[in-house]
Amino acid sequence: MANDLLITNCSLLSEPGGVIGHRSFVEIGAGRITAIGPMSSSPEPAKDTVIDAAGKLLLPGLVNAHNHCAMTLFRGLADDLELATWLKEHIFPAEAAHVNPEMVYWCTLLAAAEMIRSGTTTVADGYFFSGQAARALHDAGMRAVVAHGIVDFPAPSVPDPSKNVTTVAAFLDQWLGRSPRITPAVFAHAPYTCSPQTLRRAKELADQQGARFFIHLAETQAEQALIIDPQGSTPVRHLAELGILDENCVCVHAVWLDDYDLDLLADSGAAVVACPHSNLKLAAGIARIPDLLGRGISVGIGTDGCASNNSLDMFREMDLLAKIMKLRPLDATALPASAVLRCGTTEGARVIGLAEVGTVAVGAPADLIMLDQRSPHLTPFYSGDLLVYAAAGSDVTTTIIDGTVVMHDRQILSIDLAKVYRQVAPLSEGVRRFAAHRPKPAVPVR
Amino acid sequence: MANDLLITNCSLLSEPGGVIGHRSFVEIGAGRITAIGPMSSSPEPAKDTVIDAAGKLLLPGLVNAHNHCAMTLFRGLADDLELATWLKEHIFPAEAAHVNPEMVYWCTLLAAAEMIRSGTTTVADGYFFSGQAARALHDAGMRAVVAHGIVDFPAPSVPDPSKNVTTVAAFLDQWLGRSPRITPAVFAHAPYTCSPQTLRRAKELADQQGARFFIHLAETQAEQALIIDPQGSTPVRHLAELGILDENCVCVHAVWLDDYDLDLLADSGAAVVACPHSNLKLAAGIARIPDLLGRGISVGIGTDGCASNNSLDMFREMDLLAKIMKLRPLDATALPASAVLRCGTTEGARVIGLAEVGTVAVGAPADLIMLDQRSPHLTPFYSGDLLVYAAAGSDVTTTIIDGTVVMHDRQILSIDLAKVYRQVAPLSEGVRRFAAHRPKPAVPVR
Ligand SMILES: [Zn+2]
Ligand SMILES: [Zn+2]
Repeated sequence: MANDLLITNCSLLSEPGGVIGHRSFVEIGAGRITAIGPMSSSPEPAKDTVIDAAGKLLLPGLVNAHNHCAMTLFRGLADDLELATWLKEHIFPAEAAHVNPEMVYWCTLLAAAEMIRSGTTTVADGYFFSGQAARALHDAGMRAVVAHGIVDFPAPSVPDPSKNVTTVAAFLDQWLGRSPRITPAVFAHAPYTCSPQTLRRAKELADQQGARFFIHLAETQAEQALIIDPQGSTPVRHLAELGILDENCVCVHAVWLDDYDLDLLADSGAAVVACPHSNLKLAAGIARIPDLLGRGISVGIGTDGCASNNSLDMFREMDLLAKIMKLRPLDATALPASAVLRCGTTEGARVIGLAEVGTVAVGAPADLIMLDQRSPHLTPFYSGDLLVYAAAGSDVTTTIIDGTVVMHDRQILSIDLAKVYRQVAPLSEGVRRFAAHRPKPAVPVR
Repeated sequence: MANDLLITNCSLLSEPGGVIGHRSFVEIGAGRITAIGPMSSSPEPAKDTVIDAAGKLLLPGLVNAHNHCAMTLFRGLADDLELATWLKEHIFPAEAAHVNPEMVYWCTLLAAAEMIRSGTTTVADGYFFSGQAARALHDAGMRAVVAHGIVDFPAPSVPDPSKNVTTVAAFLDQWLGRSPRITPAVFAHAPYTCSPQTLRRAKELADQQGARFFIHLAETQAEQALIIDPQGSTPVRHLAELGILDENCVCVHAVWLDDYDLDLLADSGAAVVACPHSNLKLAAGIARIPDLLGRGISVGIGTDGCASNNSLDMFREMDLLAKIMKLRPLDATALPASAVLRCGTTEGARVIGLAEVGTVAVGAPADLIMLDQRSPHLTPFYSGDLLVYAAAGSDVTTTIIDGTVVMHDRQILSIDLAKVYRQVAPLSEGVRRFAAHRPKPAVPVR
């Protein structure tokens, strides 16, 4: 029987938290996994389509459930600043001056390169000029949910805010069904940048088109006071009152929740994305992930834009999520590594609306990564917990998306990286000159 | 003029938080930096001793100020467990069964390989069979402060606890002045495993011999209740009452401090080592690092043993330290990246008693690392903050210790890594079999 790709001799972690099977094969055809088994039952390979994965651990590609990909251009531009200062005095001005279609295309490709190199096969993006982001992620060979941003003030790709929802409608029309790997969606920025009417219209559009609806929600303690025309005493209640909180709603951050908010989320079927590095770096706080999971709420993990992180390595994100959840209760058992691995794979995929993705199973899309197990920091390897607590993106040697090898032996095959660097260099020079005129306040420590 | 090694064309970060100088040279002779300058003034090189570091960032090697190196054997053996359970039901039994001179030698070498590969050039170790640890770190080409453990119960290398201090005295005798890179020291495990008398005797020994004195202190909220014959209402006051808290005392963890403890530490001249990953993973808490630095207390950073981490990558440690400190005050400016870089280099070196180390300056020991700046996750590179918030140990291409290149192009030159794996494999198999008879309690989440 013909196969597009045969992976041999791999160790296999098919289920997060499951047992690692040794010396297995995985067969791929037409972008999907067609067979899995021990090497003793491996099919005859077509010779030019075999990857010998001896010494490698095969696992599902990671799902980054929240990113603003093009913000790679602003990585490290403004660190160690309070969120409002960071956003208003640094990020918004930099975006106003530097975000354009070219920038979004090339800087999203830069993000894709970083993600592929660190084992992320699927990303949920939320930004502007989303047609360019979709094109870049498509060209990079990634699987993506690309959500177009909506705010009630002039935005990089929507100078007239009265056209914010119709612009996104046009984006959905253009991308729905266009690429098997790219799914367009709607990203209402936040209840403090979108009026209730805008939120309702954006959600209506998403529901009508069968597109996923994303929103930053309950990120900081201060958020409630900033909500435009608040319809409830918390951000979650605000959405519930507006009729937006349902199974098509993805709440990003969801840090500041009271118990009633948790119940509302659970009853509504809404999903949550945790962004632990961003939440720490911007001093937003700690989300209540064990409480969410305990109520049966689906939780994915996102890096957030790498200006507020500053890395897109999902292994770092999983490590911090598992650890930070132990802090509030001072309970080291609060969130075990295996649960976090699920959030970084199957659960995250479900959250962003791609339920088939994030697993190594016959019939599933062939989104796979291989890790080199033979390195000092992964020795010994007693359990899959090491994937959370010791592995790093740089351990990924091979990345396969939709059955296509996009990185092998750490060489990216789907992106001309040298060209990306050449294109990004003048853009970052522009940002550097721009920032030089906006002195960063000194932060003395001792 | 002759030179042992000439590094050309590097970008140079000589001072954490400082400006990155481009196209510089660094000349090394007899293990020390002999000259630094722009390429235009580079000396004539001896041809076989030149490293062209174009595209590389040169910075001081990182200082891991607290590790139990040989515990690599227990990496990932028991994760997501409460500290007392973890220690008493898993780590102590595993140590009793598996720690021996051979194990300490080979598993310390495994740790050295991981550290060298992730840019650590100096480590402060604290364990048992410290002669073996010293030998391994010496053989690995590392710089190290090797502190021999002291507890008041039978320990792997000290079956009779009445000989705990005299055993360490013999270790000091053996290693003082023996290797220019290895400095022996004293490690009293904790006030809950060492009686006041033992602590006093251990400290006396350290002071007499001019050796550094390390102790785990104020790690958990529960610690005070466990102290043997407490002499004060907190662990810090206990040490102060015993006359141990002075400029030769290094307090590891120092998580649970009240304001009076901070004042005591500051007045005494004692130093602190922060272990943020270990403190989170074992749910110990968050140290008060900005408060310590604000009082002029020297702070280093340690990974702790990799059973409680589970990585020895100091870049991860710096990243988390900078971020976690923003959490308690919900203040993103609480501890900037540049201050953390100092703790990971110059400050950490001072803490462990090696004040010359951790800087790139003429006359300083040549402990240097090179990072490949040309990768997606380090692009753009607006500031040295990226070293904390985006860089990873795997970005280090070259590690130089005491003027000797111990890793180049990510190939370790000072350790026969294949042999280390061969030696560690049967040891880890033994631990695996041992652990199989000690079922890990299930930790249900949803
Ligand atoms: Zn975001
Ligand atoms: Zn320790």
